[in-house]
Amino acid sequence: MTEPFAFELLATDGGARRGKLTTPHGEVGTPAFMPVGTQATVKAMYPGQVRDLGADVVLGNTYHLMLRPTAERIAKLGGLHRFMNWPHTILTDSGGFQVMSLAKLRKLDETGVTFRSHIDGQRYEMTPERSVEIQGLLGSDIQMQLDECTALPAETADIERAMELSLRWAERSRAAFVAGGGPERGQALFGIVQGGDDPALRERSALALSGMGFEGHSVGGLAVGEPQDVMMRMLEVTTPLLPADKPRYLMGVGTPDDIVKSVARGVDMFDCVMPTRSGRHGLAFTRRGKVNLRNARHAEDPRPLDEESACPAARDYSRAYLHHLVRTGETLGSMLLTWNNLAYYQDLMAGMRAAIETGGFADFAQSARVGWERGDIPPL
Amino acid sequence: MTEPFAFELLATDGGARRGKLTTPHGEVGTPAFMPVGTQATVKAMYPGQVRDLGADVVLGNTYHLMLRPTAERIAKLGGLHRFMNWPHTILTDSGGFQVMSLAKLRKLDETGVTFRSHIDGQRYEMTPERSVEIQGLLGSDIQMQLDECTALPAETADIERAMELSLRWAERSRAAFVAGGGPERGQALFGIVQGGDDPALRERSALALSGMGFEGHSVGGLAVGEPQDVMMRMLEVTTPLLPADKPRYLMGVGTPDDIVKSVARGVDMFDCVMPTRSGRHGLAFTRRGKVNLRNARHAEDPRPLDEESACPAARDYSRAYLHHLVRTGETLGSMLLTWNNLAYYQDLMAGMRAAIETGGFADFAQSARVGWERGDIPPL
Repeated sequence: MTEPFAFELLATDGGARRGKLTTPHGEVGTPAFMPVGTQATVKAMYPGQVRDLGADVVLGNTYHLMLRPTAERIAKLGGLHRFMNWPHTILTDSGGFQVMSLAKLRKLDETGVTFRSHIDGQRYEMTPERSVEIQGLLGSDIQMQLDECTALPAETADIERAMELSLRWAERSRAAFVAGGGPERGQALFGIVQGGDDPALRERSALALSGMGFEGHSVGGLAVGEPQDVMMRMLEVTTPLLPADKPRYLMGVGTPDDIVKSVARGVDMFDCVMPTRSGRHGLAFTRRGKVNLRNARHAEDPRPLDEESACPAARDYSRAYLHHLVRTGETLGSMLLTWNNLAYYQDLMAGMRAAIETGGFADFAQSARVGWERGDIPPL
Repeated sequence: MTEPFAFELLATDGGARRGKLTTPHGEVGTPAFMPVGTQATVKAMYPGQVRDLGADVVLGNTYHLMLRPTAERIAKLGGLHRFMNWPHTILTDSGGFQVMSLAKLRKLDETGVTFRSHIDGQRYEMTPERSVEIQGLLGSDIQMQLDECTALPAETADIERAMELSLRWAERSRAAFVAGGGPERGQALFGIVQGGDDPALRERSALALSGMGFEGHSVGGLAVGEPQDVMMRMLEVTTPLLPADKPRYLMGVGTPDDIVKSVARGVDMFDCVMPTRSGRHGLAFTRRGKVNLRNARHAEDPRPLDEESACPAARDYSRAYLHHLVRTGETLGSMLLTWNNLAYYQDLMAGMRAAIETGGFADFAQSARVGWERGDIPPL
């Protein structure tokens, strides 16, 4: 448990990369999908189940954890790994994104953001230094700089201002991380590329961050309202400018199709609430696309979601039963569909990792796409 | 899976009985606690987990299932066992209790009850014959007659009227069960003793039912508002009048203390929502009594609920974490506490079964009581 952060590029296949992260809490095969454990739990899953699906790393949300139970309390209890019974790698965000989307009475200036908690209205201040401090208290293996993310569409001037502010915050975050002993603890801090849908701003951001000594680089400010082809163009201008010997993390993305296309463009790490949140809303991801279990067509269908899946949730329960659980709002519905969805996502990542090793990534991606497009099995 | 219903009395220790039920879906060691699977799911538990805790039988609620997804649909899908992925024994209630507590615009007469669904207002009719028909469609191994349960305190005349009606419904239920082929399918139908808190009425009910050829007998109309000592007195007048070679089921009971005291009075089977419902409300059952995880005393307590428990929920997560999950309303809190509670109940039953075999029931009961009275571990 004392290995310092490292990244090894094991193979490439076109733009796709097969790699291995080492952190103080183990190894992470890339491309990796990180289930989101917002409040120190991947919703409706036991941590052992998440691990058994092949996840090497989960994400924790700094904003939620700083409010409840607080970073100080988690530190007192031995850190986030012990707290949530997840002894493997943890990545945390900076808190900035949720501050801007969830908190009340936000005020952003050069120093940072002040806001009031969406839970009890208590006032907080978040600065680049405080974000790094909190992530250190949590004991996060892979930490994020505080940045400002601009929702799209937006004016170029606004995107540029936020991107430049994010670069200044990157410098301050890096200094705080080094001063706070992050590198000695073997932890990593990632800088975050911003620049909206403007290629020139993306380039400027990527190049500036590349010189700051981060252990890895995130691409932020995508999947925030723009079409998929814009996201892909932004990746195409960004990833070639990022150091090839450091991991690249596309934040908050996405659908299986988004992920496969982004891997083709050199991205190594992903997180998204989609498999977990969709699971709680009756939506299943399968080899044959999305299946809405709320739909009446499943009400008397004795077939499982996917009899070829190795996941019990996909294999051992009828669609009729899942439909019943979803319609009656039973917790087991969320438990089974979240399980199925994370299993699908992790299987997809494992498939990509294996394909890249053998030079078969393009075929794998094509075959996955054909499956999604074929669509669900016909009704009985 | 084709064994007909049978009950074997293996040992007695004072009033306590150690037995074995055989049903078309397996064996059930008694005394048995049956987790409640209201809507074809034991809430917040995978069926495999329920089984692994040592449960041989779960209960399904006829009222809920007849409304959603309907008994006819479950029959079409191969029965309740297959529907809920529980290949072991299932007991169903008659639906009557929930009709009287949940449904709207109830009208009860000699024929049965008409009511409107609490979900969509649809009108239904429930008779003794229809209840047996529904339970047959579900494929329940152990079925209950329709009865009328009187909440206590109540006037003797009201209790008597309901008890006498329940006896007439017992005759009709039995006839319908036999005519419908229940015995050929190896299934069981239990008659239900009523009579409120009146010993003479309880006696009359028990004696009348004993002559009707039921495969087992339930004691209903208790834990409906009366003090525990009244419940125990009613058991003391009832169980000696029931055939010793048939199982006895105390419906809807209860706390661990209720259960141990009832086993001492010759009861073999129990069901109660307490461990599951309490688990969803932050309350844990342990060897040292009840623990309210919502309480602030647990907020920074790194100790598990019960380090001596074999259940991961009790052993592998800190009280501080459980407190956090309960306070933030996370599903994992319900999952872990339900798991812990059912584990505690099943361990208690296994302990009683073993103690009765060796003539140590009184010591076991005393030792359990000492544990509960000692109370939770002191705060740090």
